Amino acid sequence: LENDDIESFRHELLRLHQYNQMKWFEQLQNPSLRKNVYKALSAREFAAIFQKLKLKDQVDKVQELEDTYQADVFSAMSTNRLADLFNRLPEHVIHQSIDQMDAEQARTVMQLMKHEEGTAGALMTTEFVSLNKDLTIEQAIEKLRAFADLAETIYYVYVENDQHQLVGVVSLRHLLAGESTKTLEEIMKEEVIQVVQDKDQEDIAKLTKDYDLIAIPVVDDDRHLLGIIMVDEIMDVVEEEATEDLGEFAASRGALGIEISALLAAKKRAPWIMGLLLIGMVTAQIISFFENTLQEVVMLSAFIPLVMGAAGNTGTQTLAVIVRSISNDEVKKGVWKIILRELSAGFMIGICSAAVLLIVIPIFYNGNWPLAFIVGGSVFLALGFATFIGCVIPIIINKLNIDQAVASGPFITTLNDMVSIVIYFLIATSFLQYLQ
Amino acid sequence: LENDDIESFRHELLRLHQYNQMKWFEQLQNPSLRKNVYKALSAREFAAIFQKLKLKDQVDKVQELEDTYQADVFSAMSTNRLADLFNRLPEHVIHQSIDQMDAEQARTVMQLMKHEEGTAGALMTTEFVSLNKDLTIEQAIEKLRAFADLAETIYYVYVENDQHQLVGVVSLRHLLAGESTKTLEEIMKEEVIQVVQDKDQEDIAKLTKDYDLIAIPVVDDDRHLLGIIMVDEIMDVVEEEATEDLGEFAASRGALGIEISALLAAKKRAPWIMGLLLIGMVTAQIISFFENTLQEVVMLSAFIPLVMGAAGNTGTQTLAVIVRSISNDEVKKGVWKIILRELSAGFMIGICSAAVLLIVIPIFYNGNWPLAFIVGGSVFLALGFATFIGCVIPIIINKLNIDQAVASGPFITTLNDMVSIVIYFLIATSFLQYLQ
Repeated sequence: LENDDIESFRHELLRLHQYNQMKWFEQLQNPSLRKNVYKALSAREFAAIFQKLKLKDQVDKVQELEDTYQADVFSAMSTNRLADLFNRLPEHVIHQSIDQMDAEQARTVMQLMKHEEGTAGALMTTEFVSLNKDLTIEQAIEKLRAFADLAETIYYVYVENDQHQLVGVVSLRHLLAGESTKTLEEIMKEEVIQVVQDKDQEDIAKLTKDYDLIAIPVVDDDRHLLGIIMVDEIMDVVEEEATEDLGEFAASRGALGIEISALLAAKKRAPWIMGLLLIGMVTAQIISFFENTLQEVVMLSAFIPLVMGAAGNTGTQTLAVIVRSISNDEVKKGVWKIILRELSAGFMIGICSAAVLLIVIPIFYNGNWPLAFIVGGSVFLALGFATFIGCVIPIIINKLNIDQAVASGPFITTLNDMVSIVIYFLIATSFLQYLQ
Repeated sequence: LENDDIESFRHELLRLHQYNQMKWFEQLQNPSLRKNVYKALSAREFAAIFQKLKLKDQVDKVQELEDTYQADVFSAMSTNRLADLFNRLPEHVIHQSIDQMDAEQARTVMQLMKHEEGTAGALMTTEFVSLNKDLTIEQAIEKLRAFADLAETIYYVYVENDQHQLVGVVSLRHLLAGESTKTLEEIMKEEVIQVVQDKDQEDIAKLTKDYDLIAIPVVDDDRHLLGIIMVDEIMDVVEEEATEDLGEFAASRGALGIEISALLAAKKRAPWIMGLLLIGMVTAQIISFFENTLQEVVMLSAFIPLVMGAAGNTGTQTLAVIVRSISNDEVKKGVWKIILRELSAGFMIGICSAAVLLIVIPIFYNGNWPLAFIVGGSVFLALGFATFIGCVIPIIINKLNIDQAVASGPFITTLNDMVSIVIYFLIATSFLQYLQ
């Protein structure tokens, strides 16, 4: 595929979609084959492939590039990809590259590197099109033609006043449909959905979804346009946030990535497990407190997992509903309605569960009806409390703006464990005489 | 805001972004105010607001519209929104509307209504631009100007051959940058990322993300273009799929929506809880089996929740990693590497947890070292098994293409419960003599 005619190879490769070019390049194991690729492609063509690689692979491959070729590749990359890469490279490589770069681009990249991860500034790229409000449509289209190759998108034209402040937006669609002598100011939409540079990425994703945007502009406090965030970046954010939600749920915040080492994964997860173990010691204490009851009827301990499990699972169901409605902002529409619904659902599930136990326990335990009533009653009550806890605690935590981790699955479950154990043993102790 | 001058109200409203127009309309409680809106806006202007409303609200408001106005609103809606709405309306309303609609549009909408939810066909809309390959760039741009108002996007032009088959795509960006006398065939990309009509939405989302697309074309088996799916639809899909993942995790599949009633939520969730209760009965049987051990040292039951909890939480962590890497397709890159990493992480977490218990238990239980070793050892072993179960079972289930629900959080946790209880009591029974 590689050794023969460079021209036909180039032609074949460049016909592919950039993602497929990247995929093809990614699987090249042999460094000398990769060298041939660098030779065959212009820096500009290779940059398009290179910036789609995973950051880790970019860091690996960067050192294979010759100095001038490398500098040209960097120049052709989009500024935010370059900033991401520089954040992973050693100081001296960056310095050397920056010396060879266009001063303007170097400054932009250095600026971008300063933004905190998860903010608008860290997601944006600076290849946008902004034009003065007094240009006519005809002039604007002329400019766009020139930008078509360089800008990240030309489908939105951001309109600036003479102080370079963002005052409007025109979609290319409207530009094409408009009369060519009108000015941008006449046809622009003045209401521009925009974010400031330190805006959180979750909020940005929500705006993009609500307003069906392809790109969202980022401005500083004086409404000067700093960059744009493209919808494909935002898709990645949505994916990332979903992973985060799941991580909170599973006591694995920041440890769901497949690429981190076993040691790092253990480091991030072990504190959760150990913390939960310590809370488990409290549960053990609670059970020890009822030692006398247990001494009388040892059989009672057989149902500890069942009561706890039912409460835990129900609490988790409710928690999932609430976590989801908090991140969808649905919760704002009516907290009480949600709480009421959850409690009613919990009540109904509790009745069904108690009914099942009243049938099954006498069958398995020789018609031990008192046991069935104690376990069934406990499950019913425990489910009620579990629903309440799984529902109200995350809402309160969200209102108070406390770290969401406290509302994470395992903590709620552990809390439910304790409550359900107390309920179970209180009921069992009260009706102990019927069991013997 | 409403009663006075219609013209200035119209002007104010239409200046807003369509999402904000919708938000404003949504909060109008008074039907007579809404009537005024219908009077003030053309059917076309109102359709833009109307089709952004939630389906439930659309169904409510539809009956407020006068017959001819309603027909005009329907005509101005995008075909897939209309199909979604029709799927919720009673037969006679649909029939009446279809009689008044353009025959072509009616046929299209009826077609769309047939597609199964969650497939490409159900997501696509038919307002796309496709042009013959022999048109010149100049002619194409001329056509686009005419379509600009009607099409969902004009940023991709799909290129057809004389048999109306999809043979290429040209972005508007390339169209603008090209020489006006070239034909579409000369400048088009032949590699069109496309899906067939029954493609699953999760796959479509992945393609869109990988290839950074704004829209993806849907074709039939003969490569005739049927419609396009816009990126904003796909953002909703990603959101939906994340909710689904969480639902599986929390034993609440299809029951996370906030809009469903308590009864429906209970109906969907109760079977999970009751099923898990029955499995819990097995755990109870296992514990009953060790009744003699418990009779000797009742204290042992105090640590049942702790051992189970630690195994459950660790299993959930691993499960979350695997579920995530399956839905990212990362798992294909190296199953064994992932399994090995998880087992190593589980081993390390197990050692840390056992160490904690060896310190804490003697403190709380008057230097009861045998108890500490029994519980610590059980936790160490149970964590190892839990990691293995949380990791291997979902991978096997994924390979065998069994329903993912079996790999859901609660089932894995319940399985881990049983295994950890067995481990705990086997160890406790073996070393019982040291406890007394």
